[in-house]
Amino acid sequence: MTTTPGQFIAEVAPWSREEFEMHLRAKGERYHIHHAFNVKMNSGLLTPDQIRGWVANRFYYQLNIPNKDSAILTNCPDRDTRRKWVLRILDHDGWEGNPGGIEAWSRLGEAVGISRTDLWSQRHVVPGVRFAVDAYVNFARHAPWQEAICSSLTEMFAPKIHQQRLANWPQHYPWIDPEGLHYFRSRISLAERDVEHGLQVTLDHFLTRAQQERAIHILEFKLDVLWSMMDAIERAYP
Amino acid sequence: MTTTPGQFIAEVAPWSREEFEMHLRAKGERYHIHHAFNVKMNSGLLTPDQIRGWVANRFYYQLNIPNKDSAILTNCPDRDTRRKWVLRILDHDGWEGNPGGIEAWSRLGEAVGISRTDLWSQRHVVPGVRFAVDAYVNFARHAPWQEAICSSLTEMFAPKIHQQRLANWPQHYPWIDPEGLHYFRSRISLAERDVEHGLQVTLDHFLTRAQQERAIHILEFKLDVLWSMMDAIERAYP
Repeated sequence: MTTTPGQFIAEVAPWSREEFEMHLRAKGERYHIHHAFNVKMNSGLLTPDQIRGWVANRFYYQLNIPNKDSAILTNCPDRDTRRKWVLRILDHDGWEGNPGGIEAWSRLGEAVGISRTDLWSQRHVVPGVRFAVDAYVNFARHAPWQEAICSSLTEMFAPKIHQQRLANWPQHYPWIDPEGLHYFRSRISLAERDVEHGLQVTLDHFLTRAQQERAIHILEFKLDVLWSMMDAIERAYP
Repeated sequence: MTTTPGQFIAEVAPWSREEFEMHLRAKGERYHIHHAFNVKMNSGLLTPDQIRGWVANRFYYQLNIPNKDSAILTNCPDRDTRRKWVLRILDHDGWEGNPGGIEAWSRLGEAVGISRTDLWSQRHVVPGVRFAVDAYVNFARHAPWQEAICSSLTEMFAPKIHQQRLANWPQHYPWIDPEGLHYFRSRISLAERDVEHGLQVTLDHFLTRAQQERAIHILEFKLDVLWSMMDAIERAYP
């Protein structure tokens, strides 16, 4: 853009809160629900080894979620935000009387035929998955906490992917014990609660148009993390 | 030490678990309970302004404890350790139905005559206190999680300092509403639980003599953090 000396560039007006949320939600078009590997998974076209490869690799993501969420806590000076955010750590790690999300994923592993030792050894985790997940955790460590919270908003698109699996796996993959699908079921209501809080922080924090566009880029980065995990898994289990 | 070429230096034998714990506990001689300012506090020799200065400055430490503990969580890949450690964050930040330790300190502030707004503004926090607390949080961010846990072991010496305040403040400082002392009371049993876990991690992790001596140095660093906070407060409120 060329400007005449002395001429000011009018700042682009920020989106309204509703428009901003709409732009964030529109990024769902890049969610890994549309990745070829996920489409195949959801259509019953994956072999047992491909399912196992996905479960074993995605486990690395699950394992790192509490570290990512703790990074947000360590950077956040606002007690009220921390009191809400810490629930995500409890959800995944569990607490007395609740085994938690990582354990639920571990049961999914057993249901698809991966032993606990094999899963927890992380020996099936391919480099592309490791790098993508590590990039996400590192972002959360080093970004301002509101940006890290914004990056969690892919949760907006998660209930649908979980619901699809719950609806389709039992018919497509009858060899998988349906008990193992508990993780997907548990995440639906938790994702809704988490999205409400994450959206509130994001809509409150990113106020100018430039900041709002920054939020969109952050969400794209996180969508890329999930997408490139799928790429790496697809390539490892052809 | 001079060595003859070809001669090997025998590695110094590690302390037994009991000896190691004894050496850690012996460092209590450097705990800020022995600092002149704390001795005065405990003998009823501080003016109301000095008490207020200490409460307002020590609040900065309280505020940062959950960030410090979250740093340990973010660096810790062991779920079982995280499940125990997260309780410290809940203790300080509180949860539904429990206002937590930061809030209890805030009530101590009101009991000594510092308004909530004044306390939370952090305007009384002196640079020496800020730097010492920040050094502690930064250590927890960057050190291996077992070292950061080891640094928390000054809690071994905390029950006594809390008990002294509970025993002496009501007679020395009758102008302070005893309700405000709840923080000290609440920490006694929590400190005991925390020490048990922190000691277990430390005694399990630092195994060679060199590692055990490293643990002693880490504990000394943390004792210095607390001591130099007292120095800075003493100087700011002569």
